[in-house]
Amino acid sequence: MGKTIAEKILSEHAKKEVKAGEIIISDIDLAFVQDGTGPLTVDQFNYLNFDDVKSKSLVFIDHASPSPRKELSNTQKKLRQFCKKSSAGLYDIGEGISHQIVAEKYAKPGDVIVGADSHSCTAGALGAFATGMGSTDIALAYGLGKVWLKVPETFKIILKGKLSKGVYAKDIILYFIGKIGADGATYKALEFDGDGIKNLSMESRLTISNMAVEAGAKVGIFPTDEITKEYLKSQGREKDYKEITADPDAKYEKTIEINLSEIEPQVSFPHTVDNTRNIKDAVGVKIDQVYIGTCTNGRIEDLRIVANILKNRKKSDDIRLIIAPASKDVYLQALKEGLINTFIKAGATILPPGCGPCVGVHAGVPADGEKVLSTQNRNFHGRAGNPNSEIYLSSPAVAAASAITGYITDPREVLE
Amino acid sequence: MGKTIAEKILSEHAKKEVKAGEIIISDIDLAFVQDGTGPLTVDQFNYLNFDDVKSKSLVFIDHASPSPRKELSNTQKKLRQFCKKSSAGLYDIGEGISHQIVAEKYAKPGDVIVGADSHSCTAGALGAFATGMGSTDIALAYGLGKVWLKVPETFKIILKGKLSKGVYAKDIILYFIGKIGADGATYKALEFDGDGIKNLSMESRLTISNMAVEAGAKVGIFPTDEITKEYLKSQGREKDYKEITADPDAKYEKTIEINLSEIEPQVSFPHTVDNTRNIKDAVGVKIDQVYIGTCTNGRIEDLRIVANILKNRKKSDDIRLIIAPASKDVYLQALKEGLINTFIKAGATILPPGCGPCVGVHAGVPADGEKVLSTQNRNFHGRAGNPNSEIYLSSPAVAAASAITGYITDPREVLE
Repeated sequence: MGKTIAEKILSEHAKKEVKAGEIIISDIDLAFVQDGTGPLTVDQFNYLNFDDVKSKSLVFIDHASPSPRKELSNTQKKLRQFCKKSSAGLYDIGEGISHQIVAEKYAKPGDVIVGADSHSCTAGALGAFATGMGSTDIALAYGLGKVWLKVPETFKIILKGKLSKGVYAKDIILYFIGKIGADGATYKALEFDGDGIKNLSMESRLTISNMAVEAGAKVGIFPTDEITKEYLKSQGREKDYKEITADPDAKYEKTIEINLSEIEPQVSFPHTVDNTRNIKDAVGVKIDQVYIGTCTNGRIEDLRIVANILKNRKKSDDIRLIIAPASKDVYLQALKEGLINTFIKAGATILPPGCGPCVGVHAGVPADGEKVLSTQNRNFHGRAGNPNSEIYLSSPAVAAASAITGYITDPREVLE
Repeated sequence: MGKTIAEKILSEHAKKEVKAGEIIISDIDLAFVQDGTGPLTVDQFNYLNFDDVKSKSLVFIDHASPSPRKELSNTQKKLRQFCKKSSAGLYDIGEGISHQIVAEKYAKPGDVIVGADSHSCTAGALGAFATGMGSTDIALAYGLGKVWLKVPETFKIILKGKLSKGVYAKDIILYFIGKIGADGATYKALEFDGDGIKNLSMESRLTISNMAVEAGAKVGIFPTDEITKEYLKSQGREKDYKEITADPDAKYEKTIEINLSEIEPQVSFPHTVDNTRNIKDAVGVKIDQVYIGTCTNGRIEDLRIVANILKNRKKSDDIRLIIAPASKDVYLQALKEGLINTFIKAGATILPPGCGPCVGVHAGVPADGEKVLSTQNRNFHGRAGNPNSEIYLSSPAVAAASAITGYITDPREVLE
């Protein structure tokens, strides 16, 4: 019988034919942690007396970067020391967000990638089985080069047609999560397919895969195609390409069709990602801070959209506008294209590549009673570092348009 | 009898002839606070039932910018609300450090400027009587447009000759403080003079005036000249120029001569600014973090020196390199000149304009046992946010050269 993409990748990594529902031991191609989850991973790794990491292993200091408190500085020091005495690679402050760097430099079609961060599913856009796990799981992945997991059932998400102007990948995934619910795909693999995916750049796919976990999914995978090949080529990794598609007779637990042309710009209201509304029902909400960046929407495609809106305009005096490129490469490209200059002239504060204020530990924690509009992936209560604040989620276009007016705004009103 | 510059400026602002030692009430041209000191100023201003600010008044959010903690976010919100309901002007996140913006846009020769920040003496470089005061003093300055103070005695500091290659303004002031001691000029006015000042740009003078307080001085004033005029012109403020010099028969408590050509690059060792050594006695100290920026050394002249050293080089893998432009204008100019690109390629983390990790509240707090080499003005115990770390102070050139090697390095070894 045919296999889904998840079943294909896991069969290869388990070195046997596996099907949804089985618990397996899988080889891995990459394991990683960040500075929030990594210290516990290192403790467990040491407790288990592992000599060294067994497969490709990375450590990213991206969450509190640079460190705002001595306690976090000390845990970051522990991570740096771990990388010195093991073969794990280090991406220190200023390098960027784990998920973006994994996409740029490591993830290959057909890989199994595990990260101690829930948005490790981002690399699914490249045709990898990429998923988040706990700190302790990654300690074992580091030490054994293997993980155990249950092969997930798959939901096939058929994207049809094309997005209309002013609507972006973020709107697709917010719309989808609004429909299916935050627990609508718990432990499922999402497999995106349909003619609509041909109209989605790799950067757009990364945005969609990144948020698979917000519907509870284990992974969010795209089949590979010319867009995958071109992206890898642009990263100097053409040889990493291989074709990964589902068998025609693969078995899906559910098939969901989405007509892209029917999607409007979306906004998730506090305090759950699935609390989505069409832009017309969100317009006018007064905001205090706009944050553009994160592993969801801090890529060059996003920054170009934002610059196109902010060019020769000024942010509202009533809001703070914070922008953080997702990685050093994104920052350098944005510099080259003059986007950083455009942002600063519009009144933005540019943070170094990293998670920025998304996780609420530094660099933009809101005050009591404040509303934040963010391109991040989560708006949980207290996520921004202050339980007395509220987070709204949107695309970079909605965020940029709203930064100009000071309230949630339909970007189609300001796009040329 | 003749007057020192301080006596001249204060006589004009007291509207009577005043001499060193007198306690006077002085008009002011500008009063300002920052986000550390400002919240208490606002409380006192409200407690005293003032209607509105009486003279030019500013609020800068530069210390914890953007905010790393909800408690600080709430106090910043208080400052923003104060600016909305009063005539005080606001420089919010991303705009830069108070002292740099005061120098660029406000300070005029002959002004009396008071700020609730010890390094408010920076504007002395422009021939202003500029000094730091407490939060409560500034509440009164806001509400009355006046301050009381004692007219200081003056030390005349005669700078002779020219700095040799690889030696900068920061080295002059560290050398001076090393000689005179951290309490060597308590409550004195420092008046810089001599043919050597003709060789010091306005940016260099700002570095020197900035650190006057580190010798305990009330102010550090330069007489005005063509360099003052040119600087104001470059800021579109030519009309703000007026000549301010001491009378030839002014009375000085002390006169100190410094031969600039004899100064070597300096490094202040932990934990006092006056614990200075010549570079040859500092070379080799292993460091963990280099910070380039602050109100002392975050100007375009500084960044050019740094870029000249970092160009086509990489920082050591053993250190973190953090760079923060002192203001938005400095950032935009650095972008235009390609300096930001050079820094990032060398491995630097670029912070938004502001105080950065200098005050130890965010964005680069060191871990236990770590050594930081910084271009900031203070290395007090715990200043960096961790009492178990150490801070060394130097010029941007020493800092940049050391970032490449990973230990304190004489910049003359790497300068072309």
